[in-house]
Amino acid sequence: MKLATLRDRSPDGQLVVVSRDLRRAVRATGIAENLRMALESWDQSEARLRELSEALDSGGAEGAFEFAGASIGPPLPRAWQWLDGSAFHSHGELMERAFKHAPIEGKLTRPLMYQGGSDDFLGPWEDMPLPSEGDGIDFEAEIAVIVDRVPMGTPAAEALGHVKLVMLANDASLRSLAIVEMKTGFGWIHAKPATSFSPVAVTPDELGPAWRDGRLCLPVQVSWNGRKFGHPDAGAMGFGFHELIAHAAYSRNLSAGTIIGSGTVSNPDYRVVGSACIAERRAIEIADEGRPITEYMRFGDRVRIEMFDAAGHTIFGAIDQKIVLKSAPPARSSNHA
Amino acid sequence: MKLATLRDRSPDGQLVVVSRDLRRAVRATGIAENLRMALESWDQSEARLRELSEALDSGGAEGAFEFAGASIGPPLPRAWQWLDGSAFHSHGELMERAFKHAPIEGKLTRPLMYQGGSDDFLGPWEDMPLPSEGDGIDFEAEIAVIVDRVPMGTPAAEALGHVKLVMLANDASLRSLAIVEMKTGFGWIHAKPATSFSPVAVTPDELGPAWRDGRLCLPVQVSWNGRKFGHPDAGAMGFGFHELIAHAAYSRNLSAGTIIGSGTVSNPDYRVVGSACIAERRAIEIADEGRPITEYMRFGDRVRIEMFDAAGHTIFGAIDQKIVLKSAPPARSSNHA
Repeated sequence: MKLATLRDRSPDGQLVVVSRDLRRAVRATGIAENLRMALESWDQSEARLRELSEALDSGGAEGAFEFAGASIGPPLPRAWQWLDGSAFHSHGELMERAFKHAPIEGKLTRPLMYQGGSDDFLGPWEDMPLPSEGDGIDFEAEIAVIVDRVPMGTPAAEALGHVKLVMLANDASLRSLAIVEMKTGFGWIHAKPATSFSPVAVTPDELGPAWRDGRLCLPVQVSWNGRKFGHPDAGAMGFGFHELIAHAAYSRNLSAGTIIGSGTVSNPDYRVVGSACIAERRAIEIADEGRPITEYMRFGDRVRIEMFDAAGHTIFGAIDQKIVLKSAPPARSSNHA
Repeated sequence: MKLATLRDRSPDGQLVVVSRDLRRAVRATGIAENLRMALESWDQSEARLRELSEALDSGGAEGAFEFAGASIGPPLPRAWQWLDGSAFHSHGELMERAFKHAPIEGKLTRPLMYQGGSDDFLGPWEDMPLPSEGDGIDFEAEIAVIVDRVPMGTPAAEALGHVKLVMLANDASLRSLAIVEMKTGFGWIHAKPATSFSPVAVTPDELGPAWRDGRLCLPVQVSWNGRKFGHPDAGAMGFGFHELIAHAAYSRNLSAGTIIGSGTVSNPDYRVVGSACIAERRAIEIADEGRPITEYMRFGDRVRIEMFDAAGHTIFGAIDQKIVLKSAPPARSSNHA
C-alpha cells in the first residue's frame, strides 16, 4: 500500500491512497482525516486503507484522480518526533575527514542519533527556503520509517513490527553551521532546516525482499542539477532500523507517527558509487587532491532523490526540489515587540 | 489568565481556565478543544478565554469546579517542538566542572540549545518512569515559554510578542548518559526523558513587573524529598527568551505551540542560593571537597518546583513528582518481530 498527503488549508493535509504505479490516487475520506490520525488508530485504519488500495489498483475506486497533477505535500506534513540516525559508517568516516573532527567514541557499537524539527516538513517538489548561501547548503538522501507507538524499553528484536511505513528523505544540512553546533555537544538547531520527504510512503510489504534485516537493500539515486551524483546502496546501514528504534526508545515512549531516519546513505566504495551528500564528495577531494573542490548548493539549484525496484519502477516517486532564499518574515506591529 | 489541561482519553487533553488563586477551574468548552488548538488560533481564542477567565475570577463562571481535585496534565501534553536553551552561564561553568569537559566555544555570545522529545510530556504530579537508577537521575528546574507561530528569521527585537504563555518545567536528565551523548555532538536522546510542567501556564501579564527584558525575575523554589535544595533567581539568564526564540528561528519556522526553555536556573552565588539540579551541587562539592558527595535520585524520591510572587502567592502551582521504575513494555506477538 502507498500513501500520500495532499496539501489543503489544514496543517496535516489530506490523506490519499496512491496506486502502485503512482499514476492514480483516491482520497481516504471516511477512513482517516489525515495520515497522522490514521497512524494513531492504525489497528482500525490499516485494513480499510488496504481495501481502498486494492480497489484503486484494480481500477474500481470511485473518485480516483491523476496523482501527478495533485498538490503533493510530505506524507506527514508534521510529526510528533523526528529522530535521525547516522547509521552508515563510511559516511561518519568521511565527515571526520571533511570537518577535521576526532572519531566519535563508541560509534560502531552505539547508534548516533539527533532529534530534528518535525513540525514543518516539506513536500517532495516544494522549494526549500533557507537564510543564506554562505551556510554551506547540502542535501542528504536518506531512508526514513514511520512507526506506531513504541513503548519505552522496547528491545530491537521486537522493534521492526512497529515499522508501518517507509519513505525517502532529503535531510538538508547547513554544513558551515553544523560543525559549530556539533562542538557544543547540544546537537543541531541552525544546521538542520526543514526535512523533505518522497511523494509516497509505502508499507514494508511493497518492498518485497529488498526489505530485510531492518534495512532497505536498494540503491538510492541522487542527482544535482540534472547530473548524476551518486547511487549508494541503502542496505549498507551499520545498524538496522530495529536497532535505531530500540535506541530511540531507551528512556522515552515514541508516539505513533514518530519518524526514524537512517542518516545519509553511504557505501565504503564511494569512489565507485558516488555519494548522497556534497560533504562526502568534498571529503574525498580532500583525501585525493588535498582540498575540497566541489562547492555547496546555490539558490536555484535542484536535487533529485529517487529509488527504483528490481524491475526499474520508481517506488516512492522522486524528491525533486529547488533551494531558494527565504522570504523576509512579516513585519509585526510594535505593540507585540 | 491562567490555563491548564485536564487528562481525558484524548492525547491533547481538555483545556480549562483556572482562577488566579488556582482554586477554581472551568472547561473552555466551545472555545477550543485543547490548548494546542487554542494556540493554533490564538487570535480568535485568546479574547474568549480571557472573558471566561474574568468571569471565573469574579465568581460568575458557570460549571466551575475545584481545580486541585482534578486530573491535571501538563498544560500542553504534547507539542510540535521543545527547544531547550542553557541560558544560565553559572550552570554551564558548574557542568564543565562536574563532567570535566572543556568550555564550550562561543557559549557567552551564542545561545546553547537542544531539541527534546515533545510528544509525551508529564503533568506536575504524575510519576516520572525511568529505566534505571544507575543512569544518574537528576531534576532540572526551568522556566519555559510557549510561542505562537514564529516565522524563520524573526529577529530578537520582535520575538517577545510571540510569547503567549509562561510555565515551570522539570527537564529531568540522566547524567551518566548525558556526557556520553554530549561527546558525540548529536545532542541528547537517552539522557533526556519526558519533561514535566507546572499545573498552569500563565499569560505574561500575570507576571507583572517580574516579566521584563525577556526574563522572569523571581526565584524558583526547589526541594528534594521535602528538604529545601535551592532558590536561584530565574532572572539571571545570560540570554533572554527573545534571544532564545530568535536563535531557534534562524533556519526554521516555529509552529504555534512550540515550547522554548531557559535551561536549568542557576545563579553565580550558588553557595548562597543553592541550585536547581543535583549535578550543580556535585560540581560545588568537587570544588570544595575534591569529590562529589550528593548522590543522584533514587526511585521513590520526590522533587518539588514552585515559584511565588512578591505577595507570596504561588504563580504556577507546584510540580511535585515521584521518580519510579518504568513498567516493562507489553509483549508483542512474534509475527510483529
